[in-house]
Order: sequence, then structure tokens, then C-alpha cells
Amino acid sequence: MSSVVVPESVPSPADDCEQLRVAFAGWGTNEKLIISILGHRTATQRQLIRKTYFELYGEDLLKSLDSELSGDFERALLLWTLDPAERDALMANQALRRWNPEDRVLIEIACARSSEELFFIRRAYHARFKRSFEEDVAQHTTGDFRKLLVPLVSSYRYDGPEVNMHMAKLEAKTMKDVINDKAFNHEELIRILSTRSKAQLNATLNNYKDEFGMQINNDLKGDPEEKFQSAVRAVVKCITKPQNYFEKTLRLAIVKLGTDEVALTRVVVTRADVDMKDIKVEYHKRNSTPLDRAIASDTSGDYKNLLLTLIGHGDI
Amino acid sequence: MSSVVVPESVPSPADDCEQLRVAFAGWGTNEKLIISILGHRTATQRQLIRKTYFELYGEDLLKSLDSELSGDFERALLLWTLDPAERDALMANQALRRWNPEDRVLIEIACARSSEELFFIRRAYHARFKRSFEEDVAQHTTGDFRKLLVPLVSSYRYDGPEVNMHMAKLEAKTMKDVINDKAFNHEELIRILSTRSKAQLNATLNNYKDEFGMQINNDLKGDPEEKFQSAVRAVVKCITKPQNYFEKTLRLAIVKLGTDEVALTRVVVTRADVDMKDIKVEYHKRNSTPLDRAIASDTSGDYKNLLLTLIGHGDI
Repeated sequence: MSSVVVPESVPSPADDCEQLRVAFAGWGTNEKLIISILGHRTATQRQLIRKTYFELYGEDLLKSLDSELSGDFERALLLWTLDPAERDALMANQALRRWNPEDRVLIEIACARSSEELFFIRRAYHARFKRSFEEDVAQHTTGDFRKLLVPLVSSYRYDGPEVNMHMAKLEAKTMKDVINDKAFNHEELIRILSTRSKAQLNATLNNYKDEFGMQINNDLKGDPEEKFQSAVRAVVKCITKPQNYFEKTLRLAIVKLGTDEVALTRVVVTRADVDMKDIKVEYHKRNSTPLDRAIASDTSGDYKNLLLTLIGHGDI
Repeated sequence: MSSVVVPESVPSPADDCEQLRVAFAGWGTNEKLIISILGHRTATQRQLIRKTYFELYGEDLLKSLDSELSGDFERALLLWTLDPAERDALMANQALRRWNPEDRVLIEIACARSSEELFFIRRAYHARFKRSFEEDVAQHTTGDFRKLLVPLVSSYRYDGPEVNMHMAKLEAKTMKDVINDKAFNHEELIRILSTRSKAQLNATLNNYKDEFGMQINNDLKGDPEEKFQSAVRAVVKCITKPQNYFEKTLRLAIVKLGTDEVALTRVVVTRADVDMKDIKVEYHKRNSTPLDRAIASDTSGDYKNLLLTLIGHGDI
């Protein structure tokens, strides 16, 4: 569930825009006022504000924000204000231009979005970059990563609940065999992970555990230097247990010496609208400290206020 | 351009449905009346008729047609009446269930439709088969064909006119090198064919011809027993010269001893709404005989009448 707290009576987009202009006016910028508006609106409401803002003032709201703000706060608020598909297209493109095999952005976008969402991201990628998403993935990645990532970002998985138990059993065995052989780049493993529906994959992996006595994720654990193997593990986690995956990503971003603001921002802005409530529960359970306290002690200023607002701190 | 002749004043969908009921009534079926309606309506109009028919009579029009008709005429009319995306999903599924490497249905669907059309086909495939298109392609094909077909059916090419001439030059060279080596399954060749926009591929192949003095299609010609090489050639033709490709498919279907009704029907029903006018010009030029005469002398009865109606015979 979303963690965004929307007021019972939402001002009109025109009223919101007027307040944003007030926040931008004069010498200083009223960041608190900006957060109190944009931090409490759904994705659809934010898009309507952006559209109305352009109609009223002839300028893209993102441009206005860009000229008023700076640092982590600016980056987080810009990403938050973007339409989710456009935001993912943008993050994907940035990840591709400085591609590194440990970056998880592409895997998150390909595996932790719905099929329709992934398609809208591909459409937004066309509009913004005049190229296709898979075209850039194929061009900027190589070897095993390319074999894995191109089908993942091109997938349009069936998203119904139907499950074929016989197939689940067969493919659990296939997966176990290739993992036993440490053939993590095996084309059958990639085929199963990149084409099966999430319901079918969950059935397959439940069968895997029942049949072989171990979660697939334990079998995929290995030397962190084995970057491709780690990527396959991230794919499995993003598909089958996205809340656990994002809880861990937050944990690592926060415990890191110096905090990983890029990852922290990304998880908060991409999940606040989706399942941040569940991620918070998972975080508290796993770390014995609530997520808002962890974020509050690791960040500061407007950036801290925005993140806490997005995860619903103090409003419930 | 479409070859379908739509009357200047189109009856309402309800009127069309009523006339169809008249055609179905009594002992015999009035095939001529059916053709005079459905053979002169655009895809959108046919979908509206089908929807209205269901609302009025509580039965799917396709079911009614199915119970009234038979043979090649039935098959052609059913395919024609289907929504184009649903029709392609159906033909793709049939091709996959009895997959054979010489069948060109999957290549036509993946390469001779627009990016948006291909996406709608994938969506129709979900709705109808509770599985994804690429999932079935990956499961039913093997080896090099799988490596080629999965990315092709999963592609969502950028469809703008922008072209990068430097890239065109580089990739023409890459293609020439792998073709010289007869490495038709090379991953770079597949990457280029399955991810680049059609405008970019045309630029690349023009460069290929200018630089190396020979059309790529001549370089790809080979023993017809080399089935994968032939498939790559069909991909190139479907992407860059669909009218030529379909002209040749029609020619082979007609000159074949006994006529290949499956191919003839497929090309007519899938292209009548799209570019059959251009294919007819191409056909006449290449065969010194007009397409309608060739079809008329090779087919008969209601099947003949339907095909001739769809290609615009006698109405212009």
C-alpha cells in the first residue's frame, strides 16, 4: 500500500499551482510549503498539477523547481514530481549511460513494475530519447548481462493468476539443475525468469523450495564478486519478494558509511505511491527500528522532511 | 494504402447486423450479402458491428458466421472479421502450436506491423491465451530461431524518422562482416535487426548497398535448405520492403500447384486494410498480370468473391 497521505479535501490543481508560485516568490524559497503540497498528492494529482502549472504560467513545473532548489532535496523532488513512467525512463537512461553491472536500476524497473507499467516506461523512453529502451540496453551492455537484461526489459508478462503446476515442477527442476552446475547464464534459466508470469514463477519457486529443501535465493548466494550471479539473485527477489528486496536496499543505503542518497531517494520515490507501507513493516521487523527513525537520523533538512513526508511519517 | 472500398454512406452498425441476420436466415445462407457488408467495412467498423451484434442477439458474430459457413471462405471471413490484433494473436498461436521453421507468420507479425500494433497483439495474446506471446515463442522454438524470434516479437521499436548516419555506417559494416563469415546467427546481427528503428535500419541497409555494392538481400540469398538464413532474409524484407515481401508471398501462393490458400488468405486479410493497393501495383509490375486476374483464375465461389472484394476489384 501507498504511504502517501493525501488530505481529505484536496485543493484544485490551480490552487496548488498558485501556492507553489507563492513558495517560489521573493528571495528565499519556501521548501516546507512545496513539500506540504507535492508530498501529499498521488501520481495522477501531481501530473495534473504539472499540466495546470504549464497552462497557467507557460513554464514546466520541473524547470521552476530546478531553478529554486538544489542538492539531494532537488533530485528527490524532481523525481517525485515526474510521471512514474517518465521517471523510470529517465533513471534507466542515466543508468545506461554510465552502466555498471552492480547498478540495480534496470533490474528494478524490469522486474518490480507491472507489465503495463513497463510498457508505459518503454513508451515514455521513446518520447524522451527517440530510441527504444531495449535498443539502449542492447547497445550499452555486453555478454551475459545483455543476455539477461534485454529480454527482461522487453518482457510483457502475462499478469493473471493462472498457474500450471506441472510446468512449475518441471521448471523448478530445470532451475535447480542449472544452478547446481553454476550455469547462471544458462538460456533456460533466463527464459524462465524473463518470460513466465509472476504467479507462475512464484509457483515454480515454491515447488523449488518444497522439492529441494532450500529457497532458490539461498542457492543463488555466492561471492559478491560474482556480479552476474548477484544480478540473477536480484531479479528473483524483485519478481517474487519486492518488499523484501526494497527493505534490504534501504537498509544497505542507510547503514552505509555516508549514506547512499541515490539509492535511498530512488526507493522512496518509486515505492511511496506503491507499497511503502508494506516495506516499512518489513523494515521495522528486520531492523528493530522504524524506517522513519532510521531515515531521520541519517539525513537532514528539506531532504529529510521530504523523505519522511513521502513515507507517511507523523501523518498517521 | 488500403484496398477496402467503403461506401460513401455507411449504414449504422445495427442496420448492418440486421442485414447479416437476414443473410443467415432460412435454409440457405446468403454469402453474397455477407460479403457486401463485411467486405466493405474498415477494421473499426467491423469491430463495432461485432459489438452491436452481440448486444442485439446475445451471440458472437464469429460464432454465427462459423455455424453458417465452411471451407476457405469461412476461414477467410472469420479472420477478416476479427479485430486485427486478435487475429494476429490467433494466427501466432496457431503457428506456434505446430511450429515449423519455414512458416513466416511469426516473422510477418513481428516485423511487418507497427510498434504499437505489435504491442496490441501482445495484449490480445494475454487476453485470449492467458500467457504471453514471447513466453510461447520461447517455449515452442529452439536454438537460433529462438534467439532470433524472441527479441523480434518482444520488440517495441522507436518509430520516429530520426536517423544516426554514423551508426548506420558502423552497423552496415558489422552486418557485412558477419554475413561474409556466414555467421547468420551472430548476436550483433540479431541485435541490430531486432532493436533498431525501421528508419535507422533502412539507413543502415542503404549504406550497406552504397558501401559494398550489393543489396543485403542478395548477400543473404542461399540454399533454401538453409532455413535460418532464409528466415533472416525474410526479416530484412518484412522490415524494409513489406510490399515486395507480400507481393512475393502472394506470387508463390498462387503459382504453387494447387494454390496455397492459407498464405493467400493471410496476406489478403492482413494487408487489405493496410497497403494492399501498393502490393497490387507491385504485383502487376512484377508479374505482368493484375493481382485480381491471378486470384480469379486460381480460386472460386464465395472465397474468390471475398478475396476480390477485399483487394478492391471492380469497385474502383
